[in-house]
Amino acid sequence: MSIVKSLSERLQLKHAEKVIAPAEIQAFQHEWGKAEIETKLQIIESLDSIPEDASRRFLQLMTRQPNGVSTLIAIRSTLFKAKLSLPLATGLTETITANLDSGLQVQRMRKDSPRHIIDLFSSSDRVHPIASECRMIRRLEEVDRRVFYLAHFQNPAHPLIVVNVALTQGVASSIQKILDDDEKESGPDSAIFYSISSLEPGLRGIDLGHRLITSATAEMQNDVSLTNVTQFSSLSPVPGFRRWILKMMDSDQSALGNVKKIFEIANILSVETIGAENYSDFRELVASLDPQLLPKFSNSLPKLLFKYLFAEKGPDNSTVCPVCNFHVRNGAELWRLNFSANTAQYGMSESLSMMVNYRYYTDKMWQNSPAENRKDVFTWTVDINGRALMRLDDEKLERLGVDHPNHRYELLNEILKQVIFSLNSRVINELYSEAAIPRTVL
Amino acid sequence: MSIVKSLSERLQLKHAEKVIAPAEIQAFQHEWGKAEIETKLQIIESLDSIPEDASRRFLQLMTRQPNGVSTLIAIRSTLFKAKLSLPLATGLTETITANLDSGLQVQRMRKDSPRHIIDLFSSSDRVHPIASECRMIRRLEEVDRRVFYLAHFQNPAHPLIVVNVALTQGVASSIQKILDDDEKESGPDSAIFYSISSLEPGLRGIDLGHRLITSATAEMQNDVSLTNVTQFSSLSPVPGFRRWILKMMDSDQSALGNVKKIFEIANILSVETIGAENYSDFRELVASLDPQLLPKFSNSLPKLLFKYLFAEKGPDNSTVCPVCNFHVRNGAELWRLNFSANTAQYGMSESLSMMVNYRYYTDKMWQNSPAENRKDVFTWTVDINGRALMRLDDEKLERLGVDHPNHRYELLNEILKQVIFSLNSRVINELYSEAAIPRTVL
Repeated sequence: MSIVKSLSERLQLKHAEKVIAPAEIQAFQHEWGKAEIETKLQIIESLDSIPEDASRRFLQLMTRQPNGVSTLIAIRSTLFKAKLSLPLATGLTETITANLDSGLQVQRMRKDSPRHIIDLFSSSDRVHPIASECRMIRRLEEVDRRVFYLAHFQNPAHPLIVVNVALTQGVASSIQKILDDDEKESGPDSAIFYSISSLEPGLRGIDLGHRLITSATAEMQNDVSLTNVTQFSSLSPVPGFRRWILKMMDSDQSALGNVKKIFEIANILSVETIGAENYSDFRELVASLDPQLLPKFSNSLPKLLFKYLFAEKGPDNSTVCPVCNFHVRNGAELWRLNFSANTAQYGMSESLSMMVNYRYYTDKMWQNSPAENRKDVFTWTVDINGRALMRLDDEKLERLGVDHPNHRYELLNEILKQVIFSLNSRVINELYSEAAIPRTVL
Repeated sequence: MSIVKSLSERLQLKHAEKVIAPAEIQAFQHEWGKAEIETKLQIIESLDSIPEDASRRFLQLMTRQPNGVSTLIAIRSTLFKAKLSLPLATGLTETITANLDSGLQVQRMRKDSPRHIIDLFSSSDRVHPIASECRMIRRLEEVDRRVFYLAHFQNPAHPLIVVNVALTQGVASSIQKILDDDEKESGPDSAIFYSISSLEPGLRGIDLGHRLITSATAEMQNDVSLTNVTQFSSLSPVPGFRRWILKMMDSDQSALGNVKKIFEIANILSVETIGAENYSDFRELVASLDPQLLPKFSNSLPKLLFKYLFAEKGPDNSTVCPVCNFHVRNGAELWRLNFSANTAQYGMSESLSMMVNYRYYTDKMWQNSPAENRKDVFTWTVDINGRALMRLDDEKLERLGVDHPNHRYELLNEILKQVIFSLNSRVINELYSEAAIPRTVL
């Protein structure tokens, strides 16, 4: 705090870098590093109280010090932690973002990476927590696993975001096989992104996921030991799926007076998918989360998930699934819905074992992105559905778990209605010429 | 050009990075790299013609590619070469500057550095051109020479600015000894910055000199093999000194009608310094540039140089010597005027053999900077003189070559007048208490 005070006048000079010794900025870093939260908040307050051009110069000088960008990220993290909304935040975000542009490097984590990086990694995965040292080591096996992270080049020991990759034969459909199986995969042809975690609360709102996935993909494409690996896909959770089912069941109970609504819900939950005769078993599965109750629903759960991902929309017309939005916006395609893909506690309680592969076609992903040739936010979000839907045809629906040709036909029709509702006529013309007619209609 | 066209629509999207493959930006780099100047100008024109937010996004995406910052610098260089003043220039300058903040690294050049870096270095020195491979190798001798350069971390093979350092016993006073002497210096205690050259026309106006000198100094301070090296100084040319003398001689001839002017000039050139009896020899020296005529002026040339550096001021009140302004603004002190320091063609024609040591006191230089505690440009430039002058005393004047105590006294008086003219009363009070009284006044 006293350091900021001693710098504040000089920071108002255009050439502040000539009157502020690097040692003074480094003394700030040292003071910050050992400060308690109260002191940190005082430091932030004093930084925020100097004129904006001066605080910008401070941030700029900080980026030039060893680990300077890391210090800025730490300050931003504290701002969030204290829920402070200060003018300083804008300068911080812009300075950090600008320095990450040319400064980010993709790094590979290995068993012999520095211990503190390994430790950070060990506690990083909140979706599939790493149960033990042994499980952690498994993720770093040279033969069939990869872990990549992004770091600013000043501080390669400060991983900002990390992605876990399994090298598998075929596009993997079970997370347990990836996490728990010690047998090495032979002849892998696919790289499966099975977990991506931000390690930095200070980067909230600065999305590095797309950059990490594309960088990691490029690393693997350039790795001569992985020439056979040509398929890239995620194996992703569906965090809100069971919640959606529960909500619908509640409506089912409470909407007795609404004939249309009951018909809709029955259509989704009972008639088309689950079958009326299985409805009480389904209720038990949803309540007990017992994986042993799953087998009976190997067909209906994918169908329900399909409805969830496509028929349901958030208020801004994107899908209600943030994971789906993330990958589709990245240019990935919804490729396969996987039944019994995660039978662990988390997988059952969030999505009744369902997981999704979002496929990254390295040649097409840049064209796939919903933002292509559009610039208004509205079209962007509508198009998440539109573009993805337009690529659906009968064969894809079958792979997605819709077995009955009649159901596929109905779904395609329903999809058409959705699309007609949200897209303009030019796009509809394209759509009609692109959508294939189902092979058999019973 | 066609690439820019194909990108321009997508660049208008907020998330352009998700619909433009790195390969497309890299294709631009490739096309740029092999283009002739006409094509380059067309490319620049097409970049300049897209909306500003789109061209900014292009620059931002470029910084993320391998050697991307180098490409931007090359584009900026072409803008200068073609003397184009386009809106694009602002975006280029800002993007490059922001990425150099955390991206610059100081590197040491060695005999075994990549050949193309050595080649760039060999032709870099425009002040003291490197005459031969052998002379170049001399500058890289581990024992008593150093060469440092700044490069963006993406491209360590692209040196942006380079500084040559000689490790000497005592602060060096002869550039020939540094450049031509093959005998290794024993027990060096001083690091002499004897040449600093920008290697990048594309960075014109982006001053990296201060950063290079401070980074190189820090490198040497941290080098355990150089613990005895504690003095840091430049050995600098005075490019306009002889031109100034010539101008004054011309005035001498033409200002016959102006009594006051003649008195002034006579005061500077003849009476006080050169002595009337030597004036025609001096004229011959200035015209012939024959070093053999130098000895007679070993006292008067330093005095004239002193006048040049202090009595003369540019229209903005800085000194007329850009080299002096550069070092003093960096926080260095004018420390010694060296007679017969450069007797080569360049040294004679520019400054009649005179060179200057600007001393970098690593503890004081940040406080020395003229910008300290001031923010308006006017004070900044006035203060180049003010601060430097305030540190002058009798002893320093003697070291600067003013032998006669009477002359020193007169000079101090004259300096006081200069200072009184340009500084306010608070500073004058400080000055009177700081300026030491000459030890002997005859």
